[in-house]
Amino acid sequence: MVVILKPNADKEQVENLKQWLQSLGIETHMSVGMTHTIIGLIGDTSNVDMDLIQSLDIVENVQRIQEPFKNANRKFHQDDTIVDVAGVKIGGGNFQIIAGPCSVETEEQICYVAECVKKSGAGLLRGGAFKPRTSPYSFQGLKAEGIQLLLEAKRNTGLPIVSEIMNISHLPLFEDVDVIQVGARNMQNFDLLKELGMTRKPILLKRGLANTLQELLMSAEYIMAGGNENVILCERGIRTFETYTRNTLDLSAVPVLRRLTHLPIVVDPSHATGYSYLVKPMALAATVAGADGIMVEVHNDPAHALCDGPQSLTPEAFDQLAKGVFAVRPFACR
Amino acid sequence: MVVILKPNADKEQVENLKQWLQSLGIETHMSVGMTHTIIGLIGDTSNVDMDLIQSLDIVENVQRIQEPFKNANRKFHQDDTIVDVAGVKIGGGNFQIIAGPCSVETEEQICYVAECVKKSGAGLLRGGAFKPRTSPYSFQGLKAEGIQLLLEAKRNTGLPIVSEIMNISHLPLFEDVDVIQVGARNMQNFDLLKELGMTRKPILLKRGLANTLQELLMSAEYIMAGGNENVILCERGIRTFETYTRNTLDLSAVPVLRRLTHLPIVVDPSHATGYSYLVKPMALAATVAGADGIMVEVHNDPAHALCDGPQSLTPEAFDQLAKGVFAVRPFACR
Amino acid sequence: MVVILKPNADKEQVENLKQWLQSLGIETHMSVGMTHTIIGLIGDTSNVDMDLIQSLDIVENVQRIQEPFKNANRKFHQDDTIVDVAGVKIGGGNFQIIAGPCSVETEEQICYVAECVKKSGAGLLRGGAFKPRTSPYSFQGLKAEGIQLLLEAKRNTGLPIVSEIMNISHLPLFEDVDVIQVGARNMQNFDLLKELGMTRKPILLKRGLANTLQELLMSAEYIMAGGNENVILCERGIRTFETYTRNTLDLSAVPVLRRLTHLPIVVDPSHATGYSYLVKPMALAATVAGADGIMVEVHNDPAHALCDGPQSLTPEAFDQLAKGVFAVRPFACR
Amino acid sequence: MVVILKPNADKEQVENLKQWLQSLGIETHMSVGMTHTIIGLIGDTSNVDMDLIQSLDIVENVQRIQEPFKNANRKFHQDDTIVDVAGVKIGGGNFQIIAGPCSVETEEQICYVAECVKKSGAGLLRGGAFKPRTSPYSFQGLKAEGIQLLLEAKRNTGLPIVSEIMNISHLPLFEDVDVIQVGARNMQNFDLLKELGMTRKPILLKRGLANTLQELLMSAEYIMAGGNENVILCERGIRTFETYTRNTLDLSAVPVLRRLTHLPIVVDPSHATGYSYLVKPMALAATVAGADGIMVEVHNDPAHALCDGPQSLTPEAFDQLAKGVFAVRPFACR
Repeated sequence: MVVILKPNADKEQVENLKQWLQSLGIETHMSVGMTHTIIGLIGDTSNVDMDLIQSLDIVENVQRIQEPFKNANRKFHQDDTIVDVAGVKIGGGNFQIIAGPCSVETEEQICYVAECVKKSGAGLLRGGAFKPRTSPYSFQGLKAEGIQLLLEAKRNTGLPIVSEIMNISHLPLFEDVDVIQVGARNMQNFDLLKELGMTRKPILLKRGLANTLQELLMSAEYIMAGGNENVILCERGIRTFETYTRNTLDLSAVPVLRRLTHLPIVVDPSHATGYSYLVKPMALAATVAGADGIMVEVHNDPAHALCDGPQSLTPEAFDQLAKGVFAVRPFACR
Repeated sequence: MVVILKPNADKEQVENLKQWLQSLGIETHMSVGMTHTIIGLIGDTSNVDMDLIQSLDIVENVQRIQEPFKNANRKFHQDDTIVDVAGVKIGGGNFQIIAGPCSVETEEQICYVAECVKKSGAGLLRGGAFKPRTSPYSFQGLKAEGIQLLLEAKRNTGLPIVSEIMNISHLPLFEDVDVIQVGARNMQNFDLLKELGMTRKPILLKRGLANTLQELLMSAEYIMAGGNENVILCERGIRTFETYTRNTLDLSAVPVLRRLTHLPIVVDPSHATGYSYLVKPMALAATVAGADGIMVEVHNDPAHALCDGPQSLTPEAFDQLAKGVFAVRPFACR
Repeated sequence: MVVILKPNADKEQVENLKQWLQSLGIETHMSVGMTHTIIGLIGDTSNVDMDLIQSLDIVENVQRIQEPFKNANRKFHQDDTIVDVAGVKIGGGNFQIIAGPCSVETEEQICYVAECVKKSGAGLLRGGAFKPRTSPYSFQGLKAEGIQLLLEAKRNTGLPIVSEIMNISHLPLFEDVDVIQVGARNMQNFDLLKELGMTRKPILLKRGLANTLQELLMSAEYIMAGGNENVILCERGIRTFETYTRNTLDLSAVPVLRRLTHLPIVVDPSHATGYSYLVKPMALAATVAGADGIMVEVHNDPAHALCDGPQSLTPEAFDQLAKGVFAVRPFACR
Repeated sequence: MVVILKPNADKEQVENLKQWLQSLGIETHMSVGMTHTIIGLIGDTSNVDMDLIQSLDIVENVQRIQEPFKNANRKFHQDDTIVDVAGVKIGGGNFQIIAGPCSVETEEQICYVAECVKKSGAGLLRGGAFKPRTSPYSFQGLKAEGIQLLLEAKRNTGLPIVSEIMNISHLPLFEDVDVIQVGARNMQNFDLLKELGMTRKPILLKRGLANTLQELLMSAEYIMAGGNENVILCERGIRTFETYTRNTLDLSAVPVLRRLTHLPIVVDPSHATGYSYLVKPMALAATVAGADGIMVEVHNDPAHALCDGPQSLTPEAFDQLAKGVFAVRPFACR
């Protein structure tokens, strides 16, 4: 951390700051310049509250040099984390396709889609039981019944299942769910993250619409600080001014996160783009960019999906996508 | 709602769509064009799922004409809503300043600040007991104890209190809190909104960092759909590329929301800008733009605030701000 | 400037960097930390190419402490610049309303509007002769004829005129134009800025849709580096995800720029918002926030304006706006 | 185009609007609804000024159904355009790598880099002679001399050359330049676009930092309206809130543009990301997403490049990138 003092900062206050930092076990080095004086902080600054220092009268600016995340930081944990989901591995060279419908609707639907995506090579089944919808008047998911139907599809196919939680009080319903998803809108629902940190379940953490990659890693840190290291990060598009796509898929996130963290990284091209014709090109792109997996919406009858229809693929289109993904996977960057 | 069909849409499918819409009580008018056919939907379309129609094979595009919010919509409720907070009124010509520290820290601190802001003309006291922080390693608030200290300050000054909730399980702790705040990061925590809709407490709903005004109104709709009409909207800055300010205060939101909704609108220039020197100019600007109130961070000793220090005002600076706000208030747009 | 070295940076290369900086007249101070070493640069770093240092193998990061603008910087020029436009002053306590139609259309129109806005208190007349339009198929302005009509209106009313230049080859046409406007889309047309720096005309420089305030000041610097200090900055909204307004007016820009620079700052609420009903509230807000002027579109018959109609005011509505602005002006922040 | 009338719109004015539209050769169809009436416009509306209609008192909203671009529109020109650059083809299945230094510095440098990139498989050589720099104090390019050095490298290697123009008065200097680049900051420098439309040179048009894909196509339209159909579109990142990358590469732009237009599409991963370690993953991703080419910065000695160093590759790294790109190219989406 570097603290830049205001010109003519009061010397006594500067001395107080130095002593306070030393009391935290931080060494300080002063560079006295023509207009500004800079204090370099040396030691473990991840617990130092930047805001507190920033707020001092004598301080012009504070800049972090070390990243504020620790458990998720590759610098302190060089090997890739491999998340084991009921025997299906993600990360550290293990690549998985997660596929399934946006919403679970009927037993027939979810079991049929599960069979299809398994045949095409998917390693995990996704399906929404609790659905975050912008409008209170839109379909909100089958809830507990949806989880039961997913479990039925799991029994039939052996595919581990991924489903989104919206409320910590629903945690008991997720006992047999293999991966708990935290949606983009809840990425900074810190109380939810803390509770999930108390479990040892794999957590699929989606990036918020307006969140930086550093904030995504800080949210992973909330989960990991509780002792749960099974965190899978998911890039799913950010909000920009462009309107031809639902969101803007930020694919550079894959190699950037690869460098910053040891956690596995998956990409969701369905929600990121919002249109089925964009899913395959972005899935292939995510794969060669080095993602550890992709997450794709598949529906037996997209024309009648109860939500998010325009971005869902038919099982046939998904099969084509999977073939393409597996074909380019050997050429992926790492 | 206007549905634009694809060129050469299958006639039978178009007929099916028309009949399905009619079964929902919606009338349809067709405009057959050279390249496109347009179906105009006539009737109450607020319950029609746009996504469902968008997903049909024959549909190129669907556009709403009516806003998707109903309870919050000024078209259906022309008079301003006046929210009564323990006798202190906001909206419909009633203007209030809400002031207090970012975090409640000690009894001495909160009671001193409460006295000061009351003397300067604040109508409500704010203070954070539960604090959403990006890092799990930052101070997270005094929690239940913070609420107790706020209640102590309320007993001393008579000022109603405003405090943020982060977790629905904490609701019992907020029994004597006069206004429950939903923070920007929880604006689309729909389960929290639904539960707050079951109470009859005034709710201060902050706009999310990347949320449109329509989404803000849809979140208000979640609360109102439960029967709680005491919703106060709060503009507190959105995320943009500009870095000199913490967020970008979107002050046009005030007159835009004024036209769209009957709910009271307050502005938080402290969080929006992130720097104390910007708070007064933006507070005055919000006032003349027609806000029903402003919400300002005040701290007895900003240099040592445990969080958000740089944007807090001293009681003296707040007194100057309040004088300025009351001076320009008679000239405000409505 | 602070240079943060990579862990284990090659010592010889570090020594080379230090010597090179010293050859530029820059002193260096080293802070050797546990994981990183920091070099503080002391001296005038405004000519040091950050990118060059950033590109060195041994460097992790470079951060500026001093702003990269010099002529526009209040630190080196503490008094407000007052731009004198044919006797009409802007800045340093002098406030002006600039008003007129988006496009000059006919002699009758421009002369009528000029009379009206003068009566209401405008100090300058604006009018577009060359119009930047997104589509090549839209009306592009009356060009040279438009300038002639503006000059006619100037002769009639005595109001100095403001008009936009799009092409440096048109400069001779602007000989009698009092203020040359650089539009948002040309804010980083550096060759145009350099040429305008060679003139001594007042330049109204509009902020680009996606430009930071620092970039706006760097563009001002291009003009000022040529010796032309008559630069007026204009905030006119930035591009965000919000769709109820055409752009998002960033009103915090006024007090931020006030602190960073001595140049006058005006606000254009017409283009920023895109709707006439938002112009008055934002004009008042800009005024109390401390702007040195506002720029407003006024049209004799907004319903038939050839461009930008929805955001134009009638002369009557403008008169109301001007009365409001003059009423709140005494309470403005400085 | 769909015009949505205000509730209770004056009937005579509505009749006038209909007659005016008919005088333009546009048919109108009315849908009278409960709260709104909709007019569907049938015929070629690309010349109808939406703003004009929007500005009418009786109009609530106008929405385009047809895209406003015509020459660039795939609907009216279904086959891919193939741009022929001195015998090197781009588009319609022809893929090219464009490579070279950000700035031309010396004859030795540009000729050496040209040799290297040719050996690795690049089809065109890029190099900046005129450099748009945010600061007037940064290196601005070798200008005319830079063009001469590029031509020297072209004579040596036979590679056609690409270089950026910033000022229309420089056009004569570009007589032997094979592709003229319009930079992101000049994407809406409409006068420059018009002049380039008068030439028959291939134009590489870069997307602006805050421009939508529709605006990019409208800028292409400016060039094509002059009769020059040799336009190559270039995605190079947009401005968002994320700070780990210089810009956010919007890779969905490739398949979106593919559907909207017949023009070739190239991607510049160097400027989009700003860091050399991100260039290869994004180049591969762009290739499989279906781009017609990529544009990459290569420097003989990135550590001493005069500008944009951090994002340049060494010839060795570029060779690896090219091998990867050619390996995945057969699997690209079309």
